[in-house]
Amino acid sequence: MATDTVQPTPYDDPAGATSAEGSTSATTGAATSGADLDPTRMQAILDGRYAEVRDLVRSNLVEFADILTDAETLSVDDYRDRVRDLLLEMAASGQTGMGFPEEYGGGGDVGASISAFETLAYGDLSVLVKAGVQFGLFGGAVLHLGTKHHHDRYLRPLISGELMGGFAMSESGHGSNVQALRTHATYDPATQEFVVTTDGDLGRKDYIGNAARHGEVAAVFAQLHVGGEDKGVHAFVVPIRERGEDGGLTPAPGVRIEDCGHKMGLNGVDNGRLWFDEVRIPRTALLNRFADVTPEGVYESSIDNPDRRFFTTLGTLVQGRISVGGAGLGAAKVAITLGVRYGDLRRQFEAADPDREQLLLDYGMHQRRLLPLLARTYALHFAQEKLVGELHLMSGVTDDESRQRELESRAAGTKALATWHATRTIQECREACGGAGYLSANRFAALKADTDVFTTFEGDNHVLLQLVAKGLLTGYASEFEDMNQLDMARFVGELAVETVIERTSVHKLLERIRDVLPGFDDGEPEAGLADPDYQLAMYRFREEHLVSGVARRLKRGIDAGHHPGAVFSRVQDHVIAAARAHVERLVLEDFTAKVAGLEDGAERDALRLLRDLHALSGIEADRAWFIEHGRLSVARSKAITREVGELCRRVRPIAVPLVESFGVPDAMLRSPDLLDERLLAEEPTR
Amino acid sequence: MATDTVQPTPYDDPAGATSAEGSTSATTGAATSGADLDPTRMQAILDGRYAEVRDLVRSNLVEFADILTDAETLSVDDYRDRVRDLLLEMAASGQTGMGFPEEYGGGGDVGASISAFETLAYGDLSVLVKAGVQFGLFGGAVLHLGTKHHHDRYLRPLISGELMGGFAMSESGHGSNVQALRTHATYDPATQEFVVTTDGDLGRKDYIGNAARHGEVAAVFAQLHVGGEDKGVHAFVVPIRERGEDGGLTPAPGVRIEDCGHKMGLNGVDNGRLWFDEVRIPRTALLNRFADVTPEGVYESSIDNPDRRFFTTLGTLVQGRISVGGAGLGAAKVAITLGVRYGDLRRQFEAADPDREQLLLDYGMHQRRLLPLLARTYALHFAQEKLVGELHLMSGVTDDESRQRELESRAAGTKALATWHATRTIQECREACGGAGYLSANRFAALKADTDVFTTFEGDNHVLLQLVAKGLLTGYASEFEDMNQLDMARFVGELAVETVIERTSVHKLLERIRDVLPGFDDGEPEAGLADPDYQLAMYRFREEHLVSGVARRLKRGIDAGHHPGAVFSRVQDHVIAAARAHVERLVLEDFTAKVAGLEDGAERDALRLLRDLHALSGIEADRAWFIEHGRLSVARSKAITREVGELCRRVRPIAVPLVESFGVPDAMLRSPDLLDERLLAEEPTR
Repeated sequence: MATDTVQPTPYDDPAGATSAEGSTSATTGAATSGADLDPTRMQAILDGRYAEVRDLVRSNLVEFADILTDAETLSVDDYRDRVRDLLLEMAASGQTGMGFPEEYGGGGDVGASISAFETLAYGDLSVLVKAGVQFGLFGGAVLHLGTKHHHDRYLRPLISGELMGGFAMSESGHGSNVQALRTHATYDPATQEFVVTTDGDLGRKDYIGNAARHGEVAAVFAQLHVGGEDKGVHAFVVPIRERGEDGGLTPAPGVRIEDCGHKMGLNGVDNGRLWFDEVRIPRTALLNRFADVTPEGVYESSIDNPDRRFFTTLGTLVQGRISVGGAGLGAAKVAITLGVRYGDLRRQFEAADPDREQLLLDYGMHQRRLLPLLARTYALHFAQEKLVGELHLMSGVTDDESRQRELESRAAGTKALATWHATRTIQECREACGGAGYLSANRFAALKADTDVFTTFEGDNHVLLQLVAKGLLTGYASEFEDMNQLDMARFVGELAVETVIERTSVHKLLERIRDVLPGFDDGEPEAGLADPDYQLAMYRFREEHLVSGVARRLKRGIDAGHHPGAVFSRVQDHVIAAARAHVERLVLEDFTAKVAGLEDGAERDALRLLRDLHALSGIEADRAWFIEHGRLSVARSKAITREVGELCRRVRPIAVPLVESFGVPDAMLRSPDLLDERLLAEEPTR
Repeated sequence: MATDTVQPTPYDDPAGATSAEGSTSATTGAATSGADLDPTRMQAILDGRYAEVRDLVRSNLVEFADILTDAETLSVDDYRDRVRDLLLEMAASGQTGMGFPEEYGGGGDVGASISAFETLAYGDLSVLVKAGVQFGLFGGAVLHLGTKHHHDRYLRPLISGELMGGFAMSESGHGSNVQALRTHATYDPATQEFVVTTDGDLGRKDYIGNAARHGEVAAVFAQLHVGGEDKGVHAFVVPIRERGEDGGLTPAPGVRIEDCGHKMGLNGVDNGRLWFDEVRIPRTALLNRFADVTPEGVYESSIDNPDRRFFTTLGTLVQGRISVGGAGLGAAKVAITLGVRYGDLRRQFEAADPDREQLLLDYGMHQRRLLPLLARTYALHFAQEKLVGELHLMSGVTDDESRQRELESRAAGTKALATWHATRTIQECREACGGAGYLSANRFAALKADTDVFTTFEGDNHVLLQLVAKGLLTGYASEFEDMNQLDMARFVGELAVETVIERTSVHKLLERIRDVLPGFDDGEPEAGLADPDYQLAMYRFREEHLVSGVARRLKRGIDAGHHPGAVFSRVQDHVIAAARAHVERLVLEDFTAKVAGLEDGAERDALRLLRDLHALSGIEADRAWFIEHGRLSVARSKAITREVGELCRRVRPIAVPLVESFGVPDAMLRSPDLLDERLLAEEPTR
């Protein structure tokens, strides 16, 4: 489309040169221009094996594009009903049931299921989140925590959307600390029932999707009491509404329901609060995959340790986190598509040409603001692809505990990075679109408001990164599942530091890093910046250093007799930094592997440019740390900053095809003011 | 209030010590605890000379607190009307007219006017922005660009709110580049009228507050054509609606009005679009303070240079930018109040105490996330106070051109920093409040949506920082007003670099910096971190170095024969960084001067802590740059990071009284879920 309007940047830094051939740029690859980058081919790479599924979702989104305006014009109740109706339509197309077993009418393909969900994020996000609640959370609980009895009874109607359900885990008092939930379910052997009760307003279920209006049942997480003993948190299917003879829904006896009311965004999702007042449910309502209660009231479980049972239960829900991360990325793709396309159409101020205003995206600052975000969107896309592939192989659960834990850790970390990236990208692109970006018609309003909660739901990002750190520090030890943060601090404190380092998978790479790193800093400051071995060695070094540093600090504090919890609090920012560094390394590894696996051509050249931009702007952002830890000379640090600027200029001509490759349907971009060439492509001013 | 629940952090870094007295911390001051910090006394310092005005606004806000819920429940039209009604009530209290001359019923006190506006930002922001449009922008245009004729006719009804007006500057095609506006007003000597016409949809007035529903007139900025010549942009009072016999308003003949429709936020403000089709207005409708047209059609102006005339015209509107910056700060104060108070009530996970969950604000990471933002809010508050004081002294306009230019530059820079700070603080505090922060009842939804546009309206922040840089690079030369960015690049390129450095006020400080800096880096890495001379020297060095570096790069590029515009584009991120560094230095100077001027006592001790935290976390955030430029050793850089952590721990016990000192009325915090002790102050878990 608009790439033919791109003007070459006529000025080159004295240190640079006018063509790629003669450039001293370290990241010179084959010449890449907008002309030979075909968005269709790049989209095929991005869509991967699930191109067909993604296209099905794209066409559904276009068919129901009116929902984007309905979101602004309908009353809250009508909007909610409209979202529900649309969900039923999409369910009928098969799009939302792909992750369920074929014998129940599902698609039997977990990877396809998540790819569909990611693509759904191009559209109205209430539809997305309602789908997540119904098919991911509620459906996932029944599928993964229930057994054949529950599957037979619930899967078909929930896949079709005929039976709407909630996922009642969070309470007002506890979101992150699920083990401390206050709702309890007490087994009554006399009637062979569980009695579910809310313990005070702190124990009310809160923010529960499908609770305020459409849900008939909910997967309720509660402390299981059997024979006077607390067996920890378990999940139960509890009816929350009854259907009357007229088809209308009313709260079930003993259930009190309150609407959470207006929210910052996602107002098409009916979030509510639930109180249970001695609600009796049959013994078979316990989702009994990992534990059961006999009719006589004997508790039985294949997993002895209660902490491990709890974490195993939560672990089966990993798909939710992977889905949210992918959804955040989808929203970021919409935002960066708008930001880049607007920057390639909108002119403001005469700069290079006194007779014509300059395109925003030809300004150096504008490139600096947007293009590293574009590169990072690609990077996270391939990391997400890898993660989904791994989940697909394991089909959600595996007997290989260590592999399962690594998947959970990776899911947690990717979710944190992807959702923060979405928040940041949407904000930066909104600002880069000026006043027009503020109008609801132009998409950013909904994107910003709807995605805001992604950073804190399905696990607060900081809490998730602590989970990642726990795995790193304990080397996914067998005790891993059993530990809270206090135990973890204690555990690490009791080890010799060397043991911790030995345990981390990172340690194995240490030797290789030492081989690669020093050579580069001796030579020219630009040398090797585009070498993936160099980039990865830097990321690995940072991770290894931060992880072992945390271990040392924990141990030192505990050896000195301080309280492990207080020690942990004190090193908490270090813990988070270590976890981040770990996930960043994984992301870069995946991007590098992806590029290495492609055939030569314009797409590979473009992706290599993006990988360099992503890798080096990541080092640039943290260059203080690298300098402080002897891994970067000042000269090389400055060279990296120059190189990031140079890479931005080289990505600029292909920026539009690169965003077109995400395949966001035009109807999902809306944005009459942002993308209307008539309003933007100003005639020459003089 | 809740400060008695604060627990001392029981663990101290081996490098630290257990009491302030014995600490090796560099920033040890008098011991400060929540107990002896009295929010009333600190509030008196913050409110300053305008305490009475601020209290008037606080009580108005509480009286009309229902508007916060109206914003969610009313239809858009009803909400708009409600905001208008409320504005009239506030106008009747005198609160909104303080900046107008007393002879027209105003308060005759510009400083009071802005203080009132800043405080109004604690409440519904549609009310704030509507007040800004009516009294600041429209009223300001009439007051500052008009003459007695206009004052006599318009000031009384506009101060009372009886006559609502818009400020029609931005067009769809041009927001930032005002000189390129397309609306034109052609003088017709035959009828002694101007004929106002919109030139295509690109020239329609866009995003104009008061245009969609309530405005009867607008100050319209248009290219003035006289005798076949284009005299540049001038402002005219143009009727946009007529009042019928029934009192209803209909568009004036020749005026087409369109509603901008739903926006991300601020939906209580009726933004609209205006097209003029040969609308005839009398000759006296020209706001003729700086230029006039005689009845015969002769153009006359006291300012010969058209560019200078234009920038002088814009310069009178500086009050608007100062107001937006102050409003952003007000919103940030609401957010940080919520974030800190929630963190002091909400417990999650057992950490230091196995029997009780820990308060969020006792976690190291949580302190790191929130407390530097609190310190920066204080820093920007005092910078804003200084700026308002300067504006007040000059009463908006002065004959001292250089001083006026410095005020404009400072207003631009402070607006950019304060509004970005608001966006960041609101986002961080929202995330720190978890899921509850997402409910509209809890204030963040409106804060986030309504303030979003602050970063791009009244001047896009990046464009504003370029204005700051222009002043720095040209030393506010007499040519300053006349230059666009292209001219500026050319201008700087033609000078010897030394001349540029000589011209900047910063240069005068260079010698002093050299005296102060080296000594510190030789000694202990912690030495002198709390010395304001050290802190300021660092900020000044960065500024001087960045400014002269930009000049060098501009000159080098132009000397090499490159196009000045392209050179400028290439160094643009450097230009922005230089401007930022300049404003950051001013902010720190003001904070330091404020502390120095206070009497000994708990308030001064607390402010000194906050200044250290602000100054050092600013250096920490940019420590890579300082290391790269030889101003920070690695050892000292690490010492600063440790010190910031230590300062956070020391601010923690007084964090609640520090936010209470902002005096945000409880009714403005709303937030039943965030501040309900019943829902948060969990009983011991075991």
